[in-house]
Amino acid sequence: MRLELRLAGEGGQGLITAAIILAEACAEYTQLNAAQTQSYGPESRGGASRADVIISTDEIDYPEVKAPDVLVVMAQEASDKYVQGVRPGGTVIVDTTYVKPIPKSEAERLKVVEYPISAKARDLGREIVANIVALGLVVEITGIVPKDAVVAAVLDRVPKGTEELNKKAFFVGVDAVKEL
Amino acid sequence: MRLELRLAGEGGQGLITAAIILAEACAEYTQLNAAQTQSYGPESRGGASRADVIISTDEIDYPEVKAPDVLVVMAQEASDKYVQGVRPGGTVIVDTTYVKPIPKSEAERLKVVEYPISAKARDLGREIVANIVALGLVVEITGIVPKDAVVAAVLDRVPKGTEELNKKAFFVGVDAVKEL
Repeated sequence: MRLELRLAGEGGQGLITAAIILAEACAEYTQLNAAQTQSYGPESRGGASRADVIISTDEIDYPEVKAPDVLVVMAQEASDKYVQGVRPGGTVIVDTTYVKPIPKSEAERLKVVEYPISAKARDLGREIVANIVALGLVVEITGIVPKDAVVAAVLDRVPKGTEELNKKAFFVGVDAVKEL
Repeated sequence: MRLELRLAGEGGQGLITAAIILAEACAEYTQLNAAQTQSYGPESRGGASRADVIISTDEIDYPEVKAPDVLVVMAQEASDKYVQGVRPGGTVIVDTTYVKPIPKSEAERLKVVEYPISAKARDLGREIVANIVALGLVVEITGIVPKDAVVAAVLDRVPKGTEELNKKAFFVGVDAVKEL
């Protein structure tokens, strides 16, 4: 079993942090292996941000995400750029706060989950936890990592004093999937 | 030109942050490409931490570090494990606060730079900036990224209120190389 995940949006949305938390959850609280990568090239200049995670029951020889099974898009540019690379039958999670609906031609070959991730984070008081709301959606949709492992990894890494807020944000994402 | 760098030590030493800062310095303030990876597997459980950076003038097709050109070791276990993987003629930067001298058989085929990275960070008031001291050493030794680009990337990412401390820490590392 190997799952390839990509989080794409803009700098400052905390996507690298979310990716690291997910990889650390696997490494520290489960027997899963994980690799976490960000690649920066000409195409990533100008504020775009992208973080990849591979989770596998086997050792990970090749750490690069080729065709994500799951893609989260939190900015329009990220959506325009990365949706086409998702494997057929894969899932795209769309932050409708910032991203227009996926073009029909693409949506037909994918599962599309739409949720106002950033707006819901804002409702919690801090849009900065949108990354953790997104993580909740990813974890509930994929079912690959136990939720308590992810919560523990979230609490390990977020700034002191923000633990409760982040935990709440995570379950906003989890519960959103249950409602959808 | 392609440079492979590995930072290895323990969780909590901020090695992933240092690696991300270096990659972001390349991406945002230079024309260099960068990829930054952490891989977690059975061997990384139990507190070990490792972060890799690849910097290249070309696009990076293969984001995995195979044989680092430069390795920083900030814990004994990391030294025991990763020094042998450095390419012949490569550089090992040893935090002598926590790591014993490199075995002679290995030291003969490598350049070894010894410096009490964590102790010097502690002297600045916060051992937590040891990662940025290490970054200063790496940047001055490799010369691959302009120092002002790295300082800008440091200031982008460190917590508010710690900018001056981190800047100071970076130049402690830079100046250490000049003195060695």
